[in-house]
Amino acid sequence: MSSPKFSLVMFGGTGDLAMRKLLPALYQSYIDDGFQSTSRVICAARTVYTSEQYREWMNESVKKHVSERLDDVKWSGFLQRIEYHPLNATDANCYVDLKNILDQNDNERVYYLATSPSIFEPICQGLASQGLNKNSRIVVEKPLGHDLASCQEINDVIGSCFEENQIYRIDHYLGKESVQNLMALRFGNSFFEPIWRRERIDNVQITISEELGVEKRAEFYDETGALRDMVQNHLLQLLCIVAMDPPASMDADAVRDAKLAVLRSLKPMSETEVLNNVVRGQYNTGTVLGKDVPAYTGEEGVKNGSVTETYVALKAEINNWRFAGVPFYLRTGKRMPKRMAEIVVQFKPVAYELLGKMPQGSNRLVIQLQPEESMRMYCLAKRPGNTMRLGPVHLDMDSDDFFTERRMDGYERLLLDAIHGNLSLFVRRDEQEAAWRWVEPIMNTWRDQNVTPKLYTAGTWGPPAANALVARDGFNWHEEL
Amino acid sequence: MSSPKFSLVMFGGTGDLAMRKLLPALYQSYIDDGFQSTSRVICAARTVYTSEQYREWMNESVKKHVSERLDDVKWSGFLQRIEYHPLNATDANCYVDLKNILDQNDNERVYYLATSPSIFEPICQGLASQGLNKNSRIVVEKPLGHDLASCQEINDVIGSCFEENQIYRIDHYLGKESVQNLMALRFGNSFFEPIWRRERIDNVQITISEELGVEKRAEFYDETGALRDMVQNHLLQLLCIVAMDPPASMDADAVRDAKLAVLRSLKPMSETEVLNNVVRGQYNTGTVLGKDVPAYTGEEGVKNGSVTETYVALKAEINNWRFAGVPFYLRTGKRMPKRMAEIVVQFKPVAYELLGKMPQGSNRLVIQLQPEESMRMYCLAKRPGNTMRLGPVHLDMDSDDFFTERRMDGYERLLLDAIHGNLSLFVRRDEQEAAWRWVEPIMNTWRDQNVTPKLYTAGTWGPPAANALVARDGFNWHEEL
Repeated sequence: MSSPKFSLVMFGGTGDLAMRKLLPALYQSYIDDGFQSTSRVICAARTVYTSEQYREWMNESVKKHVSERLDDVKWSGFLQRIEYHPLNATDANCYVDLKNILDQNDNERVYYLATSPSIFEPICQGLASQGLNKNSRIVVEKPLGHDLASCQEINDVIGSCFEENQIYRIDHYLGKESVQNLMALRFGNSFFEPIWRRERIDNVQITISEELGVEKRAEFYDETGALRDMVQNHLLQLLCIVAMDPPASMDADAVRDAKLAVLRSLKPMSETEVLNNVVRGQYNTGTVLGKDVPAYTGEEGVKNGSVTETYVALKAEINNWRFAGVPFYLRTGKRMPKRMAEIVVQFKPVAYELLGKMPQGSNRLVIQLQPEESMRMYCLAKRPGNTMRLGPVHLDMDSDDFFTERRMDGYERLLLDAIHGNLSLFVRRDEQEAAWRWVEPIMNTWRDQNVTPKLYTAGTWGPPAANALVARDGFNWHEEL
Repeated sequence: MSSPKFSLVMFGGTGDLAMRKLLPALYQSYIDDGFQSTSRVICAARTVYTSEQYREWMNESVKKHVSERLDDVKWSGFLQRIEYHPLNATDANCYVDLKNILDQNDNERVYYLATSPSIFEPICQGLASQGLNKNSRIVVEKPLGHDLASCQEINDVIGSCFEENQIYRIDHYLGKESVQNLMALRFGNSFFEPIWRRERIDNVQITISEELGVEKRAEFYDETGALRDMVQNHLLQLLCIVAMDPPASMDADAVRDAKLAVLRSLKPMSETEVLNNVVRGQYNTGTVLGKDVPAYTGEEGVKNGSVTETYVALKAEINNWRFAGVPFYLRTGKRMPKRMAEIVVQFKPVAYELLGKMPQGSNRLVIQLQPEESMRMYCLAKRPGNTMRLGPVHLDMDSDDFFTERRMDGYERLLLDAIHGNLSLFVRRDEQEAAWRWVEPIMNTWRDQNVTPKLYTAGTWGPPAANALVARDGFNWHEEL
């Protein structure tokens, strides 16, 4: 699919996200189909660079993040398509200049706000002041806000300048091939849907873990914590993809309606349920990948005696006909044994053990999102030989053996979708606010009941309470078989 | 599992079956766990050989049929364990000698009747006359009889000397790993049973094809035909394994009760249904694997103007709660494009095509029994890229990647089962008679209505009517995707 003519304005063009993710993703897209001759990538930030200087910065800082298909000739070609435009986004005058630049072409306009949410307001208003909000799209990074009210406030600001269908709230997990493939398998085959329900599924586990600690984001993170940073957005979005009913169509609003229905079916937690069903954790000193690491409260930039959580495990329940009574266990943490993101759908055991004792959890679908993307069905098959002994096998459902197409990174996919005006994989305002609405009682209970995080040794899978959370229902966290 | 002490008497010890299948299978079993020191293999036939001479014959005629793990030292060791005992099975005196031989050890006694059914009676009676029927097992090859009455007659003969639970009616297709694995997958995992029913399965196809023509068996075959030779036994047994309800246990009688229930649920065919739902075929001249071959009626040993069928395709229906309305298409033939045996379970299409037009038959489970054994699930997955395009993938459910155990040949497995006294995979009298009962109206209609076979070109998949049989229900015969 070749790109339309577009002008992509990337605010925050010298930031981390642009450097590590967005520009490398654009490079891949450039290789795939080039950009149409009038298409433009306009990076913008406060630093006073010429386009030439910016390209030098790209050579130094961006090129190394290109993980595949790096080719000097193509890279040079790509650089020549990048413009840089220095601006102070809080200065209303700069949008006059921007208008002049953009008016040179009749392209689709896409604004990517790779900046702090604190300057979303001046950017939106500046764009609107010059009519640049018309016939254009705006891409914003999640998480937006730190609670429902602040999220609504930001949405109001953006919404005062852009219609909802111009707003692309990005959650890069939704752009991952394996998440898409989960939808393909569910809705493109006839044998998943009949088993995709409470009668056949025991529990669902969604994990996003990092080896890293708080790193350079200490100040931001200490104000945020894992619940806001990961659960409210990524984990709940993944839960929606697993749990949603088949949408009426693949149109953006049909898909998002289906996800919203899940968020609205999440059983609200009472204070007692928060205390019982949510584990708040914070890493202590420990060893990660053979290296001694400090406790969270010993990290530079973290406030003394901080009670910010670096780990959350919780049990969510969905009050609907399809999934009532099926626990969805979500967990995320820093300083875990490894970086990993996966969805595990654990099927119920066989009705009775006709072929002898079965290992627990022998039927599970594991969708791995990180570090590699894959989708595997674990089941039991007969071991060769003259007795009926079973052994575990796994079926790869997205093997590169079958397809020659290159897999895209989530950001690349979503950037293309924004350029093409495909909203399906972006989060709608009502979804986002429903997620906050569900998460708020957890924040409130922690605050009102002074719930301090349980410490866990860095390099482990979190506080023991997280194991107890699943064990008391008779389950275990999935481990590689 | 090490073998018990056994004395295996193989009647027909110089025959084709012993040469190609039974002795090579015994060799494999010998390699696996040796034979206990007192265990004996006593081959018997009319030819007057000494054991030494018989071993020479084995060197010439049997050794070449050992397809794996041939090792001269082990082969020599194996030969030393083989005894030969010349006998005329119709001579009652020979059973006195046999008793003397067998009385030398206190082994489990297993008689393998690798002979023409015409001498089953003297063998059984001879054994019984010396009390050799006590505490022993008898293995007989299918097909038994040429119709229900003659089958009952043979069963009566055997049954007058042996209890039903001493009788091992072999159908080597049931010994195949992939057939066993089908049971393992169905009853060892929780996600197959919910979809293993009329609501989810469109149709089932079972094919056994050969490249070969009638070869040296012309006289026998011309009296028999494909319906009796293949449909009544192998195809219906495979149908049972696919369609049976989960048995109450894996005990032999529980499994066979479950299969019997299927046979008894087969919808009996009226004359009109036979005419509509059964295709009788006979091969004409043609080309197989690049070689011109004669018509069936041109084969040596075939009667002039023979109307024996070398091909059958039919549609069977099962009148039970699980499979009512699901057609089971069975076909078998000689002089087909290739030697192959497979079971194809075709699932229904998705409820609606949310992700665009789906190719017909994209969800199917293919259990291949010949020439290789395998079990594959075909489904659709997302092609990488920024659009939701699906492509076919297949999942190998019994890959050698997972298990190091050697796969046994069907005969080897069943020989071991007979030695160990495991009846599960052998056909019980009532099953066999139920199969004949269902097949008889076909034979009768052919006879009464003078249904002559439709000719098909050798090297093709049978007469066009076989395609029409499935096409009029909206299906196609499975072809490798």
